[in-house]
Amino acid sequence: MTIIDGKATATEIKKEIAAEVEARVARGEKRPHLAAVLVGHDGGSETYVAHKVKACEECGFDSTLIRREDDITETELLEIVAELNANPEIDGYIVQLPLPRHIDEQKIIMAVDPRKDVDGFHPVNVGRLSLGLPCFLSATPSGIMELLGRYNIETKGKHCVVLGRSNIVGKPVAQLMMQKSNPGNATVTVCHSATPDIREICRQGDIIIAALGQPGFVTADMVKPGAVIIDVGTTRVPDPTRKSGFRLSGDVDFENVAPLCSAITPVPGGVGPMTICSLMRNTLLAASGSVY
Amino acid sequence: MTIIDGKATATEIKKEIAAEVEARVARGEKRPHLAAVLVGHDGGSETYVAHKVKACEECGFDSTLIRREDDITETELLEIVAELNANPEIDGYIVQLPLPRHIDEQKIIMAVDPRKDVDGFHPVNVGRLSLGLPCFLSATPSGIMELLGRYNIETKGKHCVVLGRSNIVGKPVAQLMMQKSNPGNATVTVCHSATPDIREICRQGDIIIAALGQPGFVTADMVKPGAVIIDVGTTRVPDPTRKSGFRLSGDVDFENVAPLCSAITPVPGGVGPMTICSLMRNTLLAASGSVY
Repeated sequence: MTIIDGKATATEIKKEIAAEVEARVARGEKRPHLAAVLVGHDGGSETYVAHKVKACEECGFDSTLIRREDDITETELLEIVAELNANPEIDGYIVQLPLPRHIDEQKIIMAVDPRKDVDGFHPVNVGRLSLGLPCFLSATPSGIMELLGRYNIETKGKHCVVLGRSNIVGKPVAQLMMQKSNPGNATVTVCHSATPDIREICRQGDIIIAALGQPGFVTADMVKPGAVIIDVGTTRVPDPTRKSGFRLSGDVDFENVAPLCSAITPVPGGVGPMTICSLMRNTLLAASGSVY
Repeated sequence: MTIIDGKATATEIKKEIAAEVEARVARGEKRPHLAAVLVGHDGGSETYVAHKVKACEECGFDSTLIRREDDITETELLEIVAELNANPEIDGYIVQLPLPRHIDEQKIIMAVDPRKDVDGFHPVNVGRLSLGLPCFLSATPSGIMELLGRYNIETKGKHCVVLGRSNIVGKPVAQLMMQKSNPGNATVTVCHSATPDIREICRQGDIIIAALGQPGFVTADMVKPGAVIIDVGTTRVPDPTRKSGFRLSGDVDFENVAPLCSAITPVPGGVGPMTICSLMRNTLLAASGSVY
């Protein structure tokens, strides 16, 4: 049984990106420059953005952090987006979600220039992903495909069961897994809250990608021996023994499922660390103009 | 067993659209106006475009047919597209595919203003479909959803097996069937040329949507009794007994499968006639500005 080490893979990828950046700079090209807009003081968002800024350093990128209080108006935020779209120094940027309730997230996402949309959230990038055209892949699906590829996990003709149909994980990863490419070329089943026989379907999965956000949902009786398990769940579960007061829990009962599998991602240290790599990869692609 | 009558449903829908158009005109609003660009003399394309022009008449739309010979250059065709984008008289338009080989179809599709893309082929519309946002649905998936809805076929929690992963049928109909909506909310499995056990998976399907383009592929042994079968195949098979020299064949062995089903679409007269209705519906939506 292989434990898929997302942390080590992410470190490796960041080194590869840093080498590409230094080669670019040596050729006289500009350093990739990622900007992040952070509104308010949500604990999770603070952590994510701090990690992204740190990853920029590791990759040799320039980075800009734009902070605003959560009383910013939608119009003011749209102005920042327009400035970032127009600024030739910025190759790509993200607006960290969630946004305060008085701001329409979809409106902000639609305002981002698709050529700088390194989160891959704009409908143009979502559509291009579905059509198999060059695009900025959203971070989690992209990280999953990278892990499958680097661990040489056979996907062609395999039955991949995706649990969850969210716009940022379930739907796009299903699209990627069915695409005629490698990794990909899998038969794909998408299960969700309205699926009555989710256990029976899981048992057919050669590959299970769990993205429901329900701690420990996938139990040993749902897993075919030899299956590959990708656990996308990262729910904060209260844990008084930790200094932080919580621990991250995946969607898979790791302890009992792992012995059955041929390969499995742990939580934390599996898919999580990969998502920032995808963002870095997209920023490098944006800087090199190789998508648009 | 119900034979799902696409022809009768399409006639009904065109009448409904015509009534909406007359109500619009009575309110002093403009008649929807659809334009079609037809390059060359492909037999299938000639027929499709003629049907579309006729449907415009039935719905009370204005229509414009722009014909060019197949020696038109890509630049000339892009100019026509730019004019149609700019022309406020035209609410929506289609460029009939396939185009001659020296023209890059994807480039033409990308040049169509998404707000006039009533075929729903532009990545923005594909992405919006996937995200569950208002959009122009592409014709065949939209026609299938309309038939399921009008025949009150329960889809929630059902297992829907989609055969084929094309950009114009398999992928978008899979997206629509998994969406949290009605029709929709189904568990969806997408099978394709790389699926080894397609027969076993079909037998699990409460609903099978066959869009492989392989005449008679779905045989009786692949169908669970009581299943609903949507046959999207329309392959021209040589038939010397017909004046035209061919007949249309679906992907389903209708004669042997129909007795097992609870409902089935015939070929011809099933999904086919519905596709033009979707185009008419999109044109009406474009004219009323209710998508963008």
